[in-house]
Amino acid sequence: MKHRNPWTTLSSRTVYENPWIRVREDQVLRPDGKEGIYSVVETRIATGVIALDSAQNVYLVGQFRYATGVYSWEIIEGGADKGETPLDAAKRELREEAGLAADSWRQLGPEVHLTNCHSAERGFFFLAQGLSQTQPDPDGTEVLEVKRVPFSECLAMVDSGEIHDAMTIIGVLRAAKKVLPAGKH
Amino acid sequence: MKHRNPWTTLSSRTVYENPWIRVREDQVLRPDGKEGIYSVVETRIATGVIALDSAQNVYLVGQFRYATGVYSWEIIEGGADKGETPLDAAKRELREEAGLAADSWRQLGPEVHLTNCHSAERGFFFLAQGLSQTQPDPDGTEVLEVKRVPFSECLAMVDSGEIHDAMTIIGVLRAAKKVLPAGKH
Repeated sequence: MKHRNPWTTLSSRTVYENPWIRVREDQVLRPDGKEGIYSVVETRIATGVIALDSAQNVYLVGQFRYATGVYSWEIIEGGADKGETPLDAAKRELREEAGLAADSWRQLGPEVHLTNCHSAERGFFFLAQGLSQTQPDPDGTEVLEVKRVPFSECLAMVDSGEIHDAMTIIGVLRAAKKVLPAGKH
Repeated sequence: MKHRNPWTTLSSRTVYENPWIRVREDQVLRPDGKEGIYSVVETRIATGVIALDSAQNVYLVGQFRYATGVYSWEIIEGGADKGETPLDAAKRELREEAGLAADSWRQLGPEVHLTNCHSAERGFFFLAQGLSQTQPDPDGTEVLEVKRVPFSECLAMVDSGEIHDAMTIIGVLRAAKKVLPAGKH
């Protein structure tokens, strides 16, 4: 049991909750045996979609992010509803945000823990190809722009820092290994 | 003003706070003009260090992550203290966690927003080279293992999913562009 859990949870209570996040504060015994607290932000599962057309263009969504206070270009992203699989959430978000459906879906790598020091949030990535138009349906909290850029340009936006969003950075860098010829990423 | 902020903050209150995170709930006017709430998790700045020795080995730190409930191999990571620059925090974490100092520090790319839907957390990455031993000094909440692996093996751990941590994934993929010959990442 080399990697057993060195923390003991003594009790747990919800200290804040809204429809999107729950924050719990646990009373714990720390690895050094002393009592303390550990608080964890619980979220929905995050999904990210690299939607790639037959000419190697990728769809990016732009929106002002309230939490960071900046405008952000990102891949298609969204949280999974209760009981929804990451793949089903990805398909729904692609339809709602970009008005697209896809024939081919491949998961890009394993799950990612976005900020594991204080959050249980898990992210999943998908490459969507064989795209066709449906009807976009953004919700009232979103004012979205959608644009299509060559994948190579999107990769340059990640490298230059024009793109700051971690889900987009990881999704694009993982997709590059599938999409680009060796030596070009 | 194409990318003006479409949200209006009406009021803001702290709903939870501990030494590591603060959660605030804002009353807002949403982009569609309706009233609502938006809650934001505020954290310290996150720093990640790719510590690379002259034989192209990278230092990884293993610990059980309470928030996700799994054992996690990661680059050197830690939060910046109040008033501390990301670089100074990175230097301190390298010393505390791995007992190392470095002659050469290079920032790896621009800041990253780790989970911008509900958090203001920003991450910064550094490549540390010219390593020498000092004295490790982990704090009481950490039980750490430190190991040194070839950079190529670390990259394989990212690709295989043995590594789930977003800071580590982004740091290693960014370092690969500096460290590896073209075509090997």
